[in-house]
Amino acid sequence: MVAAREAEKRPRVSTIKYGIRPVEVVSPEQLERIHQASLAILREIGIEFRDETAIRQWKEAGADVKEHRVRLEGEMVMDLLAKAPSSFEMTSRDPSQRFEIGLDTMTFGAMQGAPNVRDLQGVRRASTIADLRDMNRLTQMLPGFHIAGGFTCEPTDIAVPWRHLHINHSSLVETNMPFFGLTTGRERAEDSIAMGRIVHGKEFMDQNAVMMGHVSGNSPLVWDATMLEGLRAFVEANQVVLLSPFVLGAANTPADIPATIAQLNAEALAALAYTQLVRPGAKMIYGQYSVSVSMRSGAPMSGMPEVTLLNAVIGQLARRYGVPWRTTASQSSAKTFDAQSGYESAVAYMSGASACANLMMHAGGWDEAGLVCCMAKFVADAEQNLLIEKYAKGISFENFDDALEAVRRIGPGGHYLGDSFTLKHFKDAFIAPEILDYLSYEQWKVKGSKDMAQRCREKAKDIIASYEQPPLDVALREELDAFVAKRQEEISPSIA
Amino acid sequence: MVAAREAEKRPRVSTIKYGIRPVEVVSPEQLERIHQASLAILREIGIEFRDETAIRQWKEAGADVKEHRVRLEGEMVMDLLAKAPSSFEMTSRDPSQRFEIGLDTMTFGAMQGAPNVRDLQGVRRASTIADLRDMNRLTQMLPGFHIAGGFTCEPTDIAVPWRHLHINHSSLVETNMPFFGLTTGRERAEDSIAMGRIVHGKEFMDQNAVMMGHVSGNSPLVWDATMLEGLRAFVEANQVVLLSPFVLGAANTPADIPATIAQLNAEALAALAYTQLVRPGAKMIYGQYSVSVSMRSGAPMSGMPEVTLLNAVIGQLARRYGVPWRTTASQSSAKTFDAQSGYESAVAYMSGASACANLMMHAGGWDEAGLVCCMAKFVADAEQNLLIEKYAKGISFENFDDALEAVRRIGPGGHYLGDSFTLKHFKDAFIAPEILDYLSYEQWKVKGSKDMAQRCREKAKDIIASYEQPPLDVALREELDAFVAKRQEEISPSIA
Repeated sequence: MVAAREAEKRPRVSTIKYGIRPVEVVSPEQLERIHQASLAILREIGIEFRDETAIRQWKEAGADVKEHRVRLEGEMVMDLLAKAPSSFEMTSRDPSQRFEIGLDTMTFGAMQGAPNVRDLQGVRRASTIADLRDMNRLTQMLPGFHIAGGFTCEPTDIAVPWRHLHINHSSLVETNMPFFGLTTGRERAEDSIAMGRIVHGKEFMDQNAVMMGHVSGNSPLVWDATMLEGLRAFVEANQVVLLSPFVLGAANTPADIPATIAQLNAEALAALAYTQLVRPGAKMIYGQYSVSVSMRSGAPMSGMPEVTLLNAVIGQLARRYGVPWRTTASQSSAKTFDAQSGYESAVAYMSGASACANLMMHAGGWDEAGLVCCMAKFVADAEQNLLIEKYAKGISFENFDDALEAVRRIGPGGHYLGDSFTLKHFKDAFIAPEILDYLSYEQWKVKGSKDMAQRCREKAKDIIASYEQPPLDVALREELDAFVAKRQEEISPSIA
Repeated sequence: MVAAREAEKRPRVSTIKYGIRPVEVVSPEQLERIHQASLAILREIGIEFRDETAIRQWKEAGADVKEHRVRLEGEMVMDLLAKAPSSFEMTSRDPSQRFEIGLDTMTFGAMQGAPNVRDLQGVRRASTIADLRDMNRLTQMLPGFHIAGGFTCEPTDIAVPWRHLHINHSSLVETNMPFFGLTTGRERAEDSIAMGRIVHGKEFMDQNAVMMGHVSGNSPLVWDATMLEGLRAFVEANQVVLLSPFVLGAANTPADIPATIAQLNAEALAALAYTQLVRPGAKMIYGQYSVSVSMRSGAPMSGMPEVTLLNAVIGQLARRYGVPWRTTASQSSAKTFDAQSGYESAVAYMSGASACANLMMHAGGWDEAGLVCCMAKFVADAEQNLLIEKYAKGISFENFDDALEAVRRIGPGGHYLGDSFTLKHFKDAFIAPEILDYLSYEQWKVKGSKDMAQRCREKAKDIIASYEQPPLDVALREELDAFVAKRQEEISPSIA
């Protein structure tokens, strides 16, 4: 109940406008060099669209197509890109869930795709549908998220061909937030859209984006049918697509940062342009997921400076193209929710915010290079989102003159604690976290010497205990349940 | 021995030139507004120099002085500031220790002033001279520091009036690095300079800066005699001073970020100008230490967004004035080396680096709001320094064209692991940390399921076990020991 009241106190984050100017890693001339290299890759090497529909569409648009290899002129790419919106809204059945994703805004989405959880007892194990529901309950209750992750953790107790049904069901029932649907293949994407339409209505979704679809590339220089089918289903239903080349530095890109950026930018440009070919004005985000790879173990490494630099350049490119971009926040490779997890996550957060990323993906729970969704970390990250929001907004000069009067009043050697300006403004001036602990060592010992992981687990338990399902019309809920049951009868639970 | 070899592999950080452009929080017009507000504070309210020598010097310079209140015209302040160097070198008896502190460089100093350690068994207790020696041994061995912290932790087993002697002794014996001397009062500052001169020679120090002195202000708007005496001793000996207003947001500054900056900037400007009055061309750094204060407990809070924003604006101001600036890296309020410690530290690191801070102070070991020097965290932070160095340097285009040839060679759907470009460049392209762990979960379990704190404690033990004292002429060492003995006879161990 305490947790519920605390969550109520603070409404969910809405549109966050950046007040800071982004860190920039390359000069305008260097940015142009990377851009031109990307266009040269698309023109000279080309890119593979392993999908017959896309191939037909590119041919009709006048591209140079040989089998699945599509070679694109820069002019065609840029003409298509010019049709893309530089900002758009997402919303949901709760009308208070409405926010803008744009070139100058920041949004937070929960993590996705973990096959394991670190649960409320701190035990690492395969995740189930019950865990996914708990994760969605936490997402719904914590104010630090704009978008529910959809498949925050995998319900591994449900057959793979049925999973997308239960994932969407939980997103739509446990939360009333915009959420990530499933895009892996035509059927799953269409099921996702159909389930969204049951709850929101087709007409509402034709006018409003309530879902986002994650469309991953296959670096180097391949987009495959499974993903492109999902892209088309979402775009045709006026929902948002996130187009993400997947970079493992030095494994599927060159061992060079600017050349890695040039390649992933070529991949992104091809998919962004294709999306506008499918539907001019389609809502889309320049995505990418990048890690460098340990040359000792082959393992992906989080929070590395090369990825931080790469992110900032992607930001510069996205602003050049006028398209919102995403980065990955809160990622860590730690095997337990320890100091490593904190260092790596905060580097990812600050690197995304300082580069003015428009969508902070995986901003909650991501540990062990994405193999674990840590419930404790999710609570910590949700609070980090609120701190990062405040940083992103920058400084207000609204009370500057009044505050300078206080300086005059207090003078040398005084103190401000009792001053009228302080009493009026201290609550808004400085944020006060609840999970980060500022007790003295002695107070902290009296309270049980709890480390951050322990405090977060307790908080997560409180929140889940106090969770209340958001209202959903009974008839719609029954229709949704029936849809899942019907599709389970139609789809074989065995993978073909 | 492994640790020693690893430390040898990587030479100590030298001059680090920024390759990124800093994040900016306020517009040029807003920056000018803050600057003008600072000048108005100095002109209209004035600032107290509670020190007769400084008062005399300000009078002679033509300032408006009434008792200890000094009112300064903007023109006088800016004329004095124009005499300050925008960069300078620090060095030591080891000629390989030579680096530049400037407007476009980054340096790392170890933490200072903790009265407690969290030791190699993870136990928190009052720190001793043996701990300080261990901290200096770690500083000497780890490649991530430019400057030894001097009083990294307090030798609480030595009488306060004698401590500065033993602190300087350890800096000069355990390390051969530039280091922080003591500035609290004329005698301690003069002892520090005298001890430096024993080892380095007066003539060498007249030409080269080997020491830095930390000169703290007394916000709001006071500089006291103890600190100003230390300032003069260091500046007259051609050593560096770091001028630091000490901000507890909403306690000794207004509860408003830009007004807090205007006040601390006024304090800094007065001290920076005074330093140039004492000795034109004096080597100095625009410092400041800022935390916001919890309105629940009164405790200082680390890693808060307000301080991140404030830091970035200080960077903008310092660049306007042409003076290097410092920020605080690695600060945390955590009571144990847990995820909170990691989050808060990395926020401080990234905020300093993204704002292009020139001196990253307390970049190693700082926990519990500075009340603890954590030996494990010190090792973790030393590695973070190397990661942050790589970020700060930005992106090289040196191999860009060759790497793009690799893109052409590999084409769609291939992979780069065996490519000649990869084999030639992967080691330089991506940094490979040793303390951050990238094993798989299964490998990590086999290796003992060690969290970061445990891995760091083990590494610290290895390093201390393999430590070798840097060479120091026997006669000089004897002279240094004799100086300490003589001064201990002269100084009463009881505080007057």
